[in-house]
Amino acid sequence: MTDLSAINAFAKSVRPAVREELEKAIARAGDHSTPALLEMITYQLGWSGEDCGTKAEGKQLRALFCLLACQAAGGVWQDALPAAAAVELIHNFSLIHDDIEDNSYFRRGRPTVWKIWGQAQAINTGDAMFALANASLLNLSQSVSPEVALKAGKRFHATCLRLTQGQHLDIAFENQNQVELETYFQMAAGKTAALLAYCLEVGALCARPDPQIQAHYHDFGHFLGLAFQVQDDILGIWGDEERTGKSTIGDLITRKKTLPVLYGLSQNKSFQAEWMSGDMTPEKAVRLGDLLEAEGGLAYAQSEADRLTGQALTALQNAQPQGEAGEILEETARQLLSRSV
Amino acid sequence: MTDLSAINAFAKSVRPAVREELEKAIARAGDHSTPALLEMITYQLGWSGEDCGTKAEGKQLRALFCLLACQAAGGVWQDALPAAAAVELIHNFSLIHDDIEDNSYFRRGRPTVWKIWGQAQAINTGDAMFALANASLLNLSQSVSPEVALKAGKRFHATCLRLTQGQHLDIAFENQNQVELETYFQMAAGKTAALLAYCLEVGALCARPDPQIQAHYHDFGHFLGLAFQVQDDILGIWGDEERTGKSTIGDLITRKKTLPVLYGLSQNKSFQAEWMSGDMTPEKAVRLGDLLEAEGGLAYAQSEADRLTGQALTALQNAQPQGEAGEILEETARQLLSRSV
Repeated sequence: MTDLSAINAFAKSVRPAVREELEKAIARAGDHSTPALLEMITYQLGWSGEDCGTKAEGKQLRALFCLLACQAAGGVWQDALPAAAAVELIHNFSLIHDDIEDNSYFRRGRPTVWKIWGQAQAINTGDAMFALANASLLNLSQSVSPEVALKAGKRFHATCLRLTQGQHLDIAFENQNQVELETYFQMAAGKTAALLAYCLEVGALCARPDPQIQAHYHDFGHFLGLAFQVQDDILGIWGDEERTGKSTIGDLITRKKTLPVLYGLSQNKSFQAEWMSGDMTPEKAVRLGDLLEAEGGLAYAQSEADRLTGQALTALQNAQPQGEAGEILEETARQLLSRSV
Repeated sequence: MTDLSAINAFAKSVRPAVREELEKAIARAGDHSTPALLEMITYQLGWSGEDCGTKAEGKQLRALFCLLACQAAGGVWQDALPAAAAVELIHNFSLIHDDIEDNSYFRRGRPTVWKIWGQAQAINTGDAMFALANASLLNLSQSVSPEVALKAGKRFHATCLRLTQGQHLDIAFENQNQVELETYFQMAAGKTAALLAYCLEVGALCARPDPQIQAHYHDFGHFLGLAFQVQDDILGIWGDEERTGKSTIGDLITRKKTLPVLYGLSQNKSFQAEWMSGDMTPEKAVRLGDLLEAEGGLAYAQSEADRLTGQALTALQNAQPQGEAGEILEETARQLLSRSV
């Protein structure tokens, strides 16, 4: 497993405040007539139901990056708490809907909301969390000026749109035989990178530095998100199961159109022929993994991950992050991105 | 049909501006990689696809009420255009998701978005319209101060939460044998009245009158929405099919838990016994309608509609609406609420 001790120590120190902010944000959903709505929300957040607790809560990396960016840009992380709660809520809203759209039965080791409460209530609960995220964000007006809160809101809504554009492409990929590499990166930019970019940008925005500095934080999150996605794609095929916790060749068995696969398909060689023909089996997936590596899919994806990692670290350098928070950001980025196969 | 000539004339004069504002708002969704996302949005708005046009677009009453409130509160309706576009977008977002949640095949005479593009893309397109609505609303900062735009945003997010609370209750009703009348009104307050209340409040807010005046506009919309819902419930059972365009006894055949039905169930008499027993048939629905009328369901619902109508008109009076827009608001409210059985 990756060593994330620096960010874990920071997480420990801010977690109670993030929890309190989230509790304040979702309390609005639970008037006396709709306790079941609040129950679904707290289940999704990992706070209630069977197997609730730290694992079910997730790592809250988005909230942490937001708070770290605020501190590293010269602010105090407490000012960014409403934004940190907002990004966690929007992330969880998107997970509820993604799980329905992907027909997923499990999330963080527990049954998904729609499996327990049905699709209709799950769609609606996602919508409620979307509304709560928006509401939480505008609580920024208690710590920053109306102008800054408005800017945070506008950028947030643009980010949410990007999320849905990425998801739109991802759903569409399932019915496409081939996907252009450029389209893959547009999907990943929306689905994975946009929210991470926003987390860092809005954190910095709350510290009110130069707009150019905010843009560098945004770019750091953007490239970090893309690099992370490409690395995830690599690990989903060639990862060491014990180290990563991910099933090797898992993404091949489910025929997921990851970056290495799309590269392989574009080469019109044996991998493509084998991928297109017949049913998938574990044996065939192993063979496909070997073919893909031999035809350059792994090397291509690794070079892309390296390129994106470099761009992320350059953007962070340009942002001139300060103090311990700045060091944690850089260390965390390096560690997340060095998860090797 | 109801005579709505005054509001129709106003609608005609503002429709091009509303359309332009909506086009500006949704253009963000259509970057070159996601034309199909934009296609679903314009289909839902009634602008594209088979049978597009005026009927498919809907009456846009919410946008009209918003603009009228702005003008009647002493402002100029153009200032409220971003809010008018936002309420139309949020209304259409909720329709896309409601149609999935209710398993509805048709909307405004056309196949629903999910029937054409599938549930996954439809859920996501609803989410995209939610994001676009939020973004459109904050364009208010071009016509009003940052403080007013922020307040409009905060109230909007609270309204969207109310919408999901109402929908949560409505979905839950399906699995309940009996529903308290109080819970019915909470459902209708969220599902129908909250957005209408917001339309009037935000329109007035853009004119920047006394906060008390804004609250009266809000209450006008709230009671108007409730009265309208109760009337809809009455017409769904005892309406004159030719005059209302609604199928008489239709809501009994689908076993919808409308206000008259809930009143009838609470009486523990013949209607309740008949409702609970056996399968539904058209003949049985006619018998149920007669029983419900005999046991006071129609009279109760009519007295509730009258009470709510009175409260709506009192709130409007308290708002002291000005000029022609004020007259149109009052006339339209009276006409909408006098649709008789």
